[in-house]
Amino acid sequence: MKKSIKAEIISIGTELLRGEITDTNAGYLASQLPLAGIELQRMTTADDDIKRLAQVLRSALRGSSIVITTGGLGPTQDDLTREAIAQVLDEQLFIDPVLETHLREIFTRMGREMPPANLQQAMRIPSAQSLPNPRGTAPGWWVEKNDKVIVVMPGPPREMLPMWQNEALPRIKARFPGEIIQARTIKTFSIQEAKVAELIHPFFGAINPTLGIYAKPDGIQVRLIAHGDDSAQLLDNAGNKIKQILAPYVWGTDTDTLGGIIGKTLSERGMSLATMEDYTGGLLGNMISDEDLSSRFYRGGLITGSDLVKIGWGVPAGEIEKKDSMSCGVAEAMAAAVKEKFSADFGLSITGISHKNSPSGQFDKVCIGVADPGGVKSWEQQFMWNRNDSFERAAVAALFRLRERLIELNLLYYVK
Amino acid sequence: MKKSIKAEIISIGTELLRGEITDTNAGYLASQLPLAGIELQRMTTADDDIKRLAQVLRSALRGSSIVITTGGLGPTQDDLTREAIAQVLDEQLFIDPVLETHLREIFTRMGREMPPANLQQAMRIPSAQSLPNPRGTAPGWWVEKNDKVIVVMPGPPREMLPMWQNEALPRIKARFPGEIIQARTIKTFSIQEAKVAELIHPFFGAINPTLGIYAKPDGIQVRLIAHGDDSAQLLDNAGNKIKQILAPYVWGTDTDTLGGIIGKTLSERGMSLATMEDYTGGLLGNMISDEDLSSRFYRGGLITGSDLVKIGWGVPAGEIEKKDSMSCGVAEAMAAAVKEKFSADFGLSITGISHKNSPSGQFDKVCIGVADPGGVKSWEQQFMWNRNDSFERAAVAALFRLRERLIELNLLYYVK
Repeated sequence: MKKSIKAEIISIGTELLRGEITDTNAGYLASQLPLAGIELQRMTTADDDIKRLAQVLRSALRGSSIVITTGGLGPTQDDLTREAIAQVLDEQLFIDPVLETHLREIFTRMGREMPPANLQQAMRIPSAQSLPNPRGTAPGWWVEKNDKVIVVMPGPPREMLPMWQNEALPRIKARFPGEIIQARTIKTFSIQEAKVAELIHPFFGAINPTLGIYAKPDGIQVRLIAHGDDSAQLLDNAGNKIKQILAPYVWGTDTDTLGGIIGKTLSERGMSLATMEDYTGGLLGNMISDEDLSSRFYRGGLITGSDLVKIGWGVPAGEIEKKDSMSCGVAEAMAAAVKEKFSADFGLSITGISHKNSPSGQFDKVCIGVADPGGVKSWEQQFMWNRNDSFERAAVAALFRLRERLIELNLLYYVK
Repeated sequence: MKKSIKAEIISIGTELLRGEITDTNAGYLASQLPLAGIELQRMTTADDDIKRLAQVLRSALRGSSIVITTGGLGPTQDDLTREAIAQVLDEQLFIDPVLETHLREIFTRMGREMPPANLQQAMRIPSAQSLPNPRGTAPGWWVEKNDKVIVVMPGPPREMLPMWQNEALPRIKARFPGEIIQARTIKTFSIQEAKVAELIHPFFGAINPTLGIYAKPDGIQVRLIAHGDDSAQLLDNAGNKIKQILAPYVWGTDTDTLGGIIGKTLSERGMSLATMEDYTGGLLGNMISDEDLSSRFYRGGLITGSDLVKIGWGVPAGEIEKKDSMSCGVAEAMAAAVKEKFSADFGLSITGISHKNSPSGQFDKVCIGVADPGGVKSWEQQFMWNRNDSFERAAVAALFRLRERLIELNLLYYVK
């Protein structure tokens, strides 16, 4: 194994340290680096204080070959990233005439005069190349010096993301041509993290591929990372063994989503889906709508705020009166009603009463219903109430049940 | 102003540095500290490597009075937080018999034998008091030594949050009794960040209260933080002036949500709301359902996946055919149809076609409709397509339009 390239990420901004905005950049960049063969050593969030910022930069440059910063490139006097880097590298900031012209053009196009403060966004140090920012006024920097690389990017994710993908990552790959690194993610549902760990225990501690287990709202994921010229083969070997061990819990790999798998299955067959939900209040419909293919298979959904509304949409009042019994009849009636009302091939429903006005820790009882060409079925599930993820877990559980029905109807097959 | 108490947060876990899970703890803790009068100096994410972890801890203890760690308290050999702290403080870990008994009881209650590896979760160092964890097997630690405090908490947010609120924060407040610190947030919509900054420019640079401006999906927020015995008065003075300057953009303060304000207004009057949406695919309904009062005013919603479905629910086909014109007639017809179908007092609609299968940067044209006792109205808005927030911004814009109508109908009043 080649010696790995080490990196650090520094997120800059007092607003991050006051918890006023959430840093999504660092987590995104962290997930990108393993696939470029780069080992992230540390992430730091620093405030807009030149002394502390310089200290964090110095410490990062001591331990890593690549230092990636986001934030602190705005036009105000609080934006000190450029200055801190100049100080640490002992270089002088100057106004780059090309950058200045470009910046003035942006303001001209917006029909506004450029405030003098913005001029600092046209500054760079001699060892910095600028990275274009088509979505904002602050260009990034690519700095190479003393065998180290500093990548400097703006804080707003909509500016940072394209700069990373189009400018920074290609330069990093060219500057640090590593060996081939590939990853595979195996996605499961209805199985506990500890049970997954127990079943695939023999794969732990391997060096190539390495293995990680992660709990996500859509189930437990196993991620394999392999390196070297035979990484594809190594991933296939280990991945197939793990899929065999974990079947029938495995529902997909890599970028698969439950909604995507269902959508592909239905749209290929010209079949359609409709939803009715109360517990999840639109989240189930929203998850399905988010799928790229949704317009081809998702007829639509009903969010029912009250029992009267359900009755109005075809759920028999008798089923609703019985709902305190152990049956999930309401969920079945909802699925059947929405299938009919939307003239869909499949109706999917979620019903339940949430403890959303109570403290966390109580159990919500939820019923999921599926109506399909083969009949109507329902399942009861319990979710420990927790505003962060109970609704999402219930919506995922409903999609998982629908996938099971698609398998039973021979429209979809287990992941091989 | 009293000298501020300084703190650092350390998030621990290799999975964080690989971008496999997102750290929500650090941002949450960061937002909590200003109100306890504590100044956050730095946040660091470190991996499960004893040497690097000890180094990060030492550096944090040099610069801060309080060091808060989350993560690395699990039962596996990767969980090294306890060991790293013992090393840095030069103390010995030992098995606390009280913690061991408690841990064994947890496993007995679950009907399982305790794996030997879990015993390390009963370990502590002499200067650590344990912090109870009612939601997991790993207790936290409260360490006081050499005038420094280390707060050690588990990584899963559902375990960390209650431990912070019930155990750690009260101890911090008792150990560092600071002056009174209070905050006020003023929430605006339909105004750009730069414009807010320009209008309230005279308040910048003040020491008490300090001022911050933050862009959120529900608009630009101004946050004031005041300290000292007269902080309530200081907040009122500055807050009222800023509200006057920024009216009519101000829609709420502090914990207000647009859905909450609308829900309170409607439910107090026994009035009801229904929604129909295509562009946002259920997100609008979901935002409203999430409000605590939703069952009292939200009749429900329709997610329409296709034009045929809209026609089926009462939207005239003629309006849909006209939709490429500049009119927002479809949005008006949708709002009127859903108001009638759900027998609601207000119908709220969003329609538009998203560039969700295209790269970011294109503009989505969206129409919002409101049908109410006074008639039907619609608005056209453009959103630059961006998977992260276009849908959320459209749903918020719809709620903002509904609030405007409530004001026009004298059911709700501008924030004073």
